[in-house]
Amino acid sequence: MAQTMMALRKTKRGRGAEMQEIPIPDIKPNEVLIKIHASSLCGTDVHIYEWDAWAQSRIKTVPYTVGHETTGEVVKAGSVVTRVKEGDIVSVETHIPCLHCKQCLTGQMHVCHNLQILGVDRDGAFAEYLVVPEVVAWKNDTSIPPELLSIQEPLGNAVHATLIEPVHGKSVVILGDGPIGLFAVGVARACGATQIFLTGLDPFRLNIGKKMGADRIIDVAKEDAVQVIKDATDGLGADVVLEMSGANQSMQSGIAALRRGGRFCFFGIYKDNLVPTPLNDIVFNGGTFYGINGRLMFDTWFTVSNLLSSRRLDVTPVVTHKMPLTSFAEAFELMIEVPKKVGKIVLFPDTKYMTNGSH
Amino acid sequence: MAQTMMALRKTKRGRGAEMQEIPIPDIKPNEVLIKIHASSLCGTDVHIYEWDAWAQSRIKTVPYTVGHETTGEVVKAGSVVTRVKEGDIVSVETHIPCLHCKQCLTGQMHVCHNLQILGVDRDGAFAEYLVVPEVVAWKNDTSIPPELLSIQEPLGNAVHATLIEPVHGKSVVILGDGPIGLFAVGVARACGATQIFLTGLDPFRLNIGKKMGADRIIDVAKEDAVQVIKDATDGLGADVVLEMSGANQSMQSGIAALRRGGRFCFFGIYKDNLVPTPLNDIVFNGGTFYGINGRLMFDTWFTVSNLLSSRRLDVTPVVTHKMPLTSFAEAFELMIEVPKKVGKIVLFPDTKYMTNGSH
Amino acid sequence: MAQTMMALRKTKRGRGAEMQEIPIPDIKPNEVLIKIHASSLCGTDVHIYEWDAWAQSRIKTVPYTVGHETTGEVVKAGSVVTRVKEGDIVSVETHIPCLHCKQCLTGQMHVCHNLQILGVDRDGAFAEYLVVPEVVAWKNDTSIPPELLSIQEPLGNAVHATLIEPVHGKSVVILGDGPIGLFAVGVARACGATQIFLTGLDPFRLNIGKKMGADRIIDVAKEDAVQVIKDATDGLGADVVLEMSGANQSMQSGIAALRRGGRFCFFGIYKDNLVPTPLNDIVFNGGTFYGINGRLMFDTWFTVSNLLSSRRLDVTPVVTHKMPLTSFAEAFELMIEVPKKVGKIVLFPDTKYMTNGSH
Amino acid sequence: MAQTMMALRKTKRGRGAEMQEIPIPDIKPNEVLIKIHASSLCGTDVHIYEWDAWAQSRIKTVPYTVGHETTGEVVKAGSVVTRVKEGDIVSVETHIPCLHCKQCLTGQMHVCHNLQILGVDRDGAFAEYLVVPEVVAWKNDTSIPPELLSIQEPLGNAVHATLIEPVHGKSVVILGDGPIGLFAVGVARACGATQIFLTGLDPFRLNIGKKMGADRIIDVAKEDAVQVIKDATDGLGADVVLEMSGANQSMQSGIAALRRGGRFCFFGIYKDNLVPTPLNDIVFNGGTFYGINGRLMFDTWFTVSNLLSSRRLDVTPVVTHKMPLTSFAEAFELMIEVPKKVGKIVLFPDTKYMTNGSH
Repeated sequence: MAQTMMALRKTKRGRGAEMQEIPIPDIKPNEVLIKIHASSLCGTDVHIYEWDAWAQSRIKTVPYTVGHETTGEVVKAGSVVTRVKEGDIVSVETHIPCLHCKQCLTGQMHVCHNLQILGVDRDGAFAEYLVVPEVVAWKNDTSIPPELLSIQEPLGNAVHATLIEPVHGKSVVILGDGPIGLFAVGVARACGATQIFLTGLDPFRLNIGKKMGADRIIDVAKEDAVQVIKDATDGLGADVVLEMSGANQSMQSGIAALRRGGRFCFFGIYKDNLVPTPLNDIVFNGGTFYGINGRLMFDTWFTVSNLLSSRRLDVTPVVTHKMPLTSFAEAFELMIEVPKKVGKIVLFPDTKYMTNGSH
Repeated sequence: MAQTMMALRKTKRGRGAEMQEIPIPDIKPNEVLIKIHASSLCGTDVHIYEWDAWAQSRIKTVPYTVGHETTGEVVKAGSVVTRVKEGDIVSVETHIPCLHCKQCLTGQMHVCHNLQILGVDRDGAFAEYLVVPEVVAWKNDTSIPPELLSIQEPLGNAVHATLIEPVHGKSVVILGDGPIGLFAVGVARACGATQIFLTGLDPFRLNIGKKMGADRIIDVAKEDAVQVIKDATDGLGADVVLEMSGANQSMQSGIAALRRGGRFCFFGIYKDNLVPTPLNDIVFNGGTFYGINGRLMFDTWFTVSNLLSSRRLDVTPVVTHKMPLTSFAEAFELMIEVPKKVGKIVLFPDTKYMTNGSH
Repeated sequence: MAQTMMALRKTKRGRGAEMQEIPIPDIKPNEVLIKIHASSLCGTDVHIYEWDAWAQSRIKTVPYTVGHETTGEVVKAGSVVTRVKEGDIVSVETHIPCLHCKQCLTGQMHVCHNLQILGVDRDGAFAEYLVVPEVVAWKNDTSIPPELLSIQEPLGNAVHATLIEPVHGKSVVILGDGPIGLFAVGVARACGATQIFLTGLDPFRLNIGKKMGADRIIDVAKEDAVQVIKDATDGLGADVVLEMSGANQSMQSGIAALRRGGRFCFFGIYKDNLVPTPLNDIVFNGGTFYGINGRLMFDTWFTVSNLLSSRRLDVTPVVTHKMPLTSFAEAFELMIEVPKKVGKIVLFPDTKYMTNGSH
Repeated sequence: MAQTMMALRKTKRGRGAEMQEIPIPDIKPNEVLIKIHASSLCGTDVHIYEWDAWAQSRIKTVPYTVGHETTGEVVKAGSVVTRVKEGDIVSVETHIPCLHCKQCLTGQMHVCHNLQILGVDRDGAFAEYLVVPEVVAWKNDTSIPPELLSIQEPLGNAVHATLIEPVHGKSVVILGDGPIGLFAVGVARACGATQIFLTGLDPFRLNIGKKMGADRIIDVAKEDAVQVIKDATDGLGADVVLEMSGANQSMQSGIAALRRGGRFCFFGIYKDNLVPTPLNDIVFNGGTFYGINGRLMFDTWFTVSNLLSSRRLDVTPVVTHKMPLTSFAEAFELMIEVPKKVGKIVLFPDTKYMTNGSH
């Protein structure tokens, strides 16, 4: 086996990233080495690439390898590893838990007290090889093509947010037409939501939302979302609202559009931490409001995988671009310059996995 | 308005029933009078018609009017009625609650301590008119045709059993290919179950199950259901098992086919109350076992109605027969003589509502 | 029976209220007439008495009778009433539901879309007689003395907030030492919380909190609540935080003191609706945040009643004052002038029910 | 450190067990070596000692070391162990999960598909040293004395069964006065159950039940349990029934004593797997029936530990005997000959931990 690999490194505390040849790392008895087949871009990667205020405060050490949505083949497994074995095709959970805090011991390891994030707190997946502890390795169904295996992690965000309580027979509002919002539309549709609203600002993305199964597209530049939703729900408001925009105004509209006793998920990240929030409305609403971070390990992964492999859910309309990993700069520029024309971009270290049209 | 109506009456403690002209009853301040558009046959009606051992012990007084699955128009509403008004098209919940026992006061009125059953404990729906207390009146979505509005009650059994916990991403086994089992297949499919097994004995009904969305049909005369299910679930067994056959052997197979920590619903009624049951297997399984009786009032009705009106669920393959109410004898004979060729039979007091091909 | 009664009326849109003789009202077929034994004061009553900004915007019509926490004897029951009968000792739920909206039909009538509040939207309980619809009448356990029967409604707020998820084995923080916060301490203690923190500003009330079972009193004028809680919970923060102060700073501290994946209840009402809230912290926390309004009808009432009648919970330390109803002005002045020395004040239209020392 | 240790070994497929000197085993990178302080006897140990039919079919290989309820000090930790470290006082979970089956990956590792049981499938705890994988090590609160640390495992059964749904404000029936039933009484009492019934046959044990907090003791030799329970619950039956006797008649009584829509736990093991069970009553009851196996890992352990260390729960009345490990034969004979006079027996390899009267 090779001793070195190519990896996209954040080499300095500033804009950009560069491809470097570095040693393939060793593994501990409870770790696995993965040969990457595909890795996809997330907004977080863009923040780090652009080196915005968040990245400056969040990233502790450079140099390191970025990227965290990925799939590949296990090529080496430590001596006490039992969950996967060499030859298995795996994806990885981005949230690396400590396994000994209270959350890790009570089924909430996705919000571990000592959480490490792949591609943020340790070397990530925009590389030819990746080392992770066994506990975050997820054995894939190989009937699913690589570009979809790679996006299971963000799809898992959408599944976790949408299905934290069941949606069957319910009216569901998704605020925000980014990739997670578009995924959420498909998840709600596949799992029995009977009235699905999607809000957004861009016709290209809203049109993908329609393909994913939204019953009603609301272009918030042209329509009053609260009014549209109330009119369509006997004036009650929607059973479920998923806030996936991170926009203050959208959040406030979402609370206004929630029926009393409904369910609301906070998933979008706001520019500032302190956001003017209608707390009295929340009190009188009497509903349930969730903070959504990561995915259940691994309940969400089973749902994601089963929805994909059973073909109940088709997320291909959201995967808009496939490129070689070497085209990373172009990929980042697309995300930065024309975000409204981009769904998910998947990068391939070895283009033989870039199976155009395979799905 | 007319003073009398035709009604199918159980006139004596013995086999059969007869159509009689009787007075249209008065209503109390909290009751409504409904002009029936359609009423469907249930196995319970057949037991009463045939006057089997169960019926002999269960039916307290004759004469009375049978039938309980129904839809029609409110033609009179009592002075304190607010839930519906004259002109509304309604269906009715069969479980008439007392409204003052602990269950009624804590969201479980479907298992009221003093439950009365429509068409069993009081005059039912195979008639031109029906009186019920406001509390069981459900205002219908009139975009749904009458024969489907009528079968919302048994469809509600299937929805309640299937969705008492969410099924998205799960493997679901339905034991028994009667109408409720066939409905359950469709419900599971519409609400995101990713692997659906249906067991049965009759090709005609199993074929309807396939149309409803079953991934795998198991003819238990030809195949070992437990083996088929285990083979398809990595040897674990299924996440969810719905026992809708009332057959001892099927129930025992179902427990054997349930994965540890899974979910099981007892819905089928057994010939004898005391059934040899693998209780130690239940203990070691560590799962959740529900008794399923009726439907949640009215969470289940919302789900039923929304699934039908959104067209997410199409149950028309199960509705095999539509007839005038005057053909009741033929309908009962079909249920008794060729049950395996019958899904749901809907009867119409006024044939103008018998809209063939409308759905 | 008498034709008229004394009632404390809000007679004009301004400060104060006056005792007037008015006719005892008639009842509808689904209503009951109650002879009041005891009624207690709530902060809402004080807002209305003082005619503050909230009251000016919230109260729609005068004159009307104020007060909503109460107990008394049913002296007349309408013709279709079955839940209670003449002679029953009852309390009443303040939230009067419409019984026909989606929430009312799905076990959430406490957040009915068309909710009416007793003593706000219709004549209330500071009177000799009260008329309410049967649906809000709760039959009391007569082994409980009248002053405790009267405060079941606010105790129900505390029970609903504290027990919306179980607290057994958990660390629970109660922010705010008002009557509901003090009740919540006792409820958490009686139901198995193993570490109970109470924050407040007043030694008199914090001392009641100690009697109610708090393990750790935090005087926020002297100590840093977040630090105290983190130090006592291995740095994780508490499993459960109940925000019962309505103070912005307290709410922000509460979110900082909540462990990841914990449970938070918004119960306190804020001066302004839009409150600067750390939403990103909520997202990353990944926990569950409830708006708490009213009480479950009637699950909460069963819990309240059973905790009191079993003597598992003793709330007498919170009931600091008992007076005749005619002393209403003195009672309001106590609440306004020396709130920190007052827990609950109970008023008695007939002093024979003012059984000092009975509990 | 010593090279050998004393261990109570099942040396042959027949009655009895013998103390032998054997090598202290090595550990793997993910395992820990524990110096035992105390280990308690379970009915399972007695079955194995007596070599009854169950033991003959269940035990796969001899010789091996028996015992599974235990506490001790970590004296060696493998290289990838992070949950505990040398010097920590730990207890161990008996259910050793595979960590890679579906249950292990979805928060149900206590019902792992490939479960190994300590002291049954691998060397157990009646010894001076014990090796277990890190995943089952539970770091103890050292303010709790050793004999109580040791019985946390069976106390965890009681906590899991009692609290699988909350009991606050509820009526709870515990069928069977064995140690788990007695623990369950205390757990229900500490966590807010407001009416607690205990059934049994032996005055000595029923009297312990009274000390643990039962409101009503039912000697089933003298009283009709169903009648007593119905009389005390307005004829409804109890909210919760915990079947901890493994007796057919008791189980049938329990189902008869459960109110409609109630909660039932199957915990007791029956002599035969197929037990005549009133399944139609279960269907019509409409309640929730759980199979209870093990404890939640590690939610239950947190509850157990917190209840003990906060002194909310005192289980000392159930710990009736403390002896040196060398007196094992006497201990087994007590369990076999006079079970009705025995609660829990704790054995100490080193009598310096046998702190009589310490609690």
